[in-house]
Amino acid sequence: MFEQLGLIGCGLMGSSFALAMKRAGLVKRVVGYSKSPTTTERARQLGIIDVEAPSALLAVSGADIVLIAVPVASTEATFKAIKHLVRPDMLIMDVGSTKHDVVDAARRTLREHMGLFVPCHPIAGKEVAGVDNADVDLFSGRQVILTPVEATNAAHLQNAVNVWTALGCKVSQMTPEQHDAAFASVSHLPHLLAFALMNAISGQQQGENFLSLAGPGFRDFTRIAAGDPKIWRDIMLANAQELLAQSKLFQHSLQALEQLISSGNAAELESQLERASMTRANWRMGVKTSP
Amino acid sequence: MFEQLGLIGCGLMGSSFALAMKRAGLVKRVVGYSKSPTTTERARQLGIIDVEAPSALLAVSGADIVLIAVPVASTEATFKAIKHLVRPDMLIMDVGSTKHDVVDAARRTLREHMGLFVPCHPIAGKEVAGVDNADVDLFSGRQVILTPVEATNAAHLQNAVNVWTALGCKVSQMTPEQHDAAFASVSHLPHLLAFALMNAISGQQQGENFLSLAGPGFRDFTRIAAGDPKIWRDIMLANAQELLAQSKLFQHSLQALEQLISSGNAAELESQLERASMTRANWRMGVKTSP
Repeated sequence: MFEQLGLIGCGLMGSSFALAMKRAGLVKRVVGYSKSPTTTERARQLGIIDVEAPSALLAVSGADIVLIAVPVASTEATFKAIKHLVRPDMLIMDVGSTKHDVVDAARRTLREHMGLFVPCHPIAGKEVAGVDNADVDLFSGRQVILTPVEATNAAHLQNAVNVWTALGCKVSQMTPEQHDAAFASVSHLPHLLAFALMNAISGQQQGENFLSLAGPGFRDFTRIAAGDPKIWRDIMLANAQELLAQSKLFQHSLQALEQLISSGNAAELESQLERASMTRANWRMGVKTSP
Repeated sequence: MFEQLGLIGCGLMGSSFALAMKRAGLVKRVVGYSKSPTTTERARQLGIIDVEAPSALLAVSGADIVLIAVPVASTEATFKAIKHLVRPDMLIMDVGSTKHDVVDAARRTLREHMGLFVPCHPIAGKEVAGVDNADVDLFSGRQVILTPVEATNAAHLQNAVNVWTALGCKVSQMTPEQHDAAFASVSHLPHLLAFALMNAISGQQQGENFLSLAGPGFRDFTRIAAGDPKIWRDIMLANAQELLAQSKLFQHSLQALEQLISSGNAAELESQLERASMTRANWRMGVKTSP
């Protein structure tokens, strides 16, 4: 049980976390701050936070648990803003989709307090952002990846595991580098492809006509292309190296299929499509399957 | 009201059509044929067809409406098999996802009976195939594209419009070439990309680990990668030229984003992601939106 949650960023992720913490009885009081004062006010009106803080620093004041739920590119500035009120018993977590850059930012700014920070990535989200879409069940049943480093305080790490577990999450741990490679592959690249497809279609003279004919397969395939451009700009730039490496692998795979199509190699094309189809048919979210 | 539907191909599409026709009271009797005798038998056991035909030719015998619901690459062989029992009052339709190749096959084989054939593409489907997944509502509320040519009999065309409309579909018409360009863009290409992504991930040493971390965005993005490899092999080969052209446009769009990521051009990257995000957010299935 925590006394006070300092919430920095009252968007979808932060607000949903506050609601879930309250429902689970894990926190008595939430002090919240968002860059936009109207967002902070709205969060209080909705009962997501109890007190509006006028700055990130004051949101942290007196907190025993802090959640940083800002776009990853703003993480370093947030660490800088709060570091003067960080106390040794304070558990600091984030929810960023990239981890290597966030850990680097923490090292540079938190320094001797680096051990208090437990880098977290809950695999949860929606295509609608903002405090008004806060969802107390957003994290229920989802995976959360923690990426502790050597400096991470063991007791704080255990506390972070306990918090997410109490919210109904399945917690696992890996290095920031492993995390970023994995999510470049299964999250950042699919987003990049979905954005690129939308632009490729709409950039054609007949694009509007084509889009009017698209069906349910297209609907699901492109759902993630409606994601927040600022959030995804930051993620793609923060994880550029891994993302570009995955994009190259993808293009090799695509060009291999193109080659089979243009040469009319039906047997090998079917075999490659079958491999993809079997992999997808056997995949279950959050479950490790045998190859 | 038709007397007898000759159904060639008792898979998902054909069986669902037969069920929908019966429920709508549009046909008295269904005579069905599938390449696999166990499928034909199963269709009769499930009440989807009333009579099992031992060949495509006999399925057509005495029918006043014929639906060809076979993989597109088998369409020409099917036309050849039935042409000797084609009668001038017989409405012949297909459900193929490509139209230029199907129309060419009809020209080559049906010849003087070409006018009886109305090429159809209902924009409906599931990632599970086969007679056991037949769904009386599969076509309800869906778009159906008809691609008549000069030779198409006007009365037959009107009959085809009436049938699909009576099944709850929104019917529109375009040329086979317009159809194939549009669906290369919004259907065949997304499938190709989804298949390519699955192979790109599973081909990596860490692929299995990566997949175990994937979340709901990945789930929806790759749903179509579980599609039937034979069906998609045929579609991709039948529409190779348009598909490869769309794939090239897509790769240019992807490489433009990659360039912005590798050069760290945050402003232009955001602007391009925003364009994609807005296009997708404003898109509604089956609705033509303004640019």
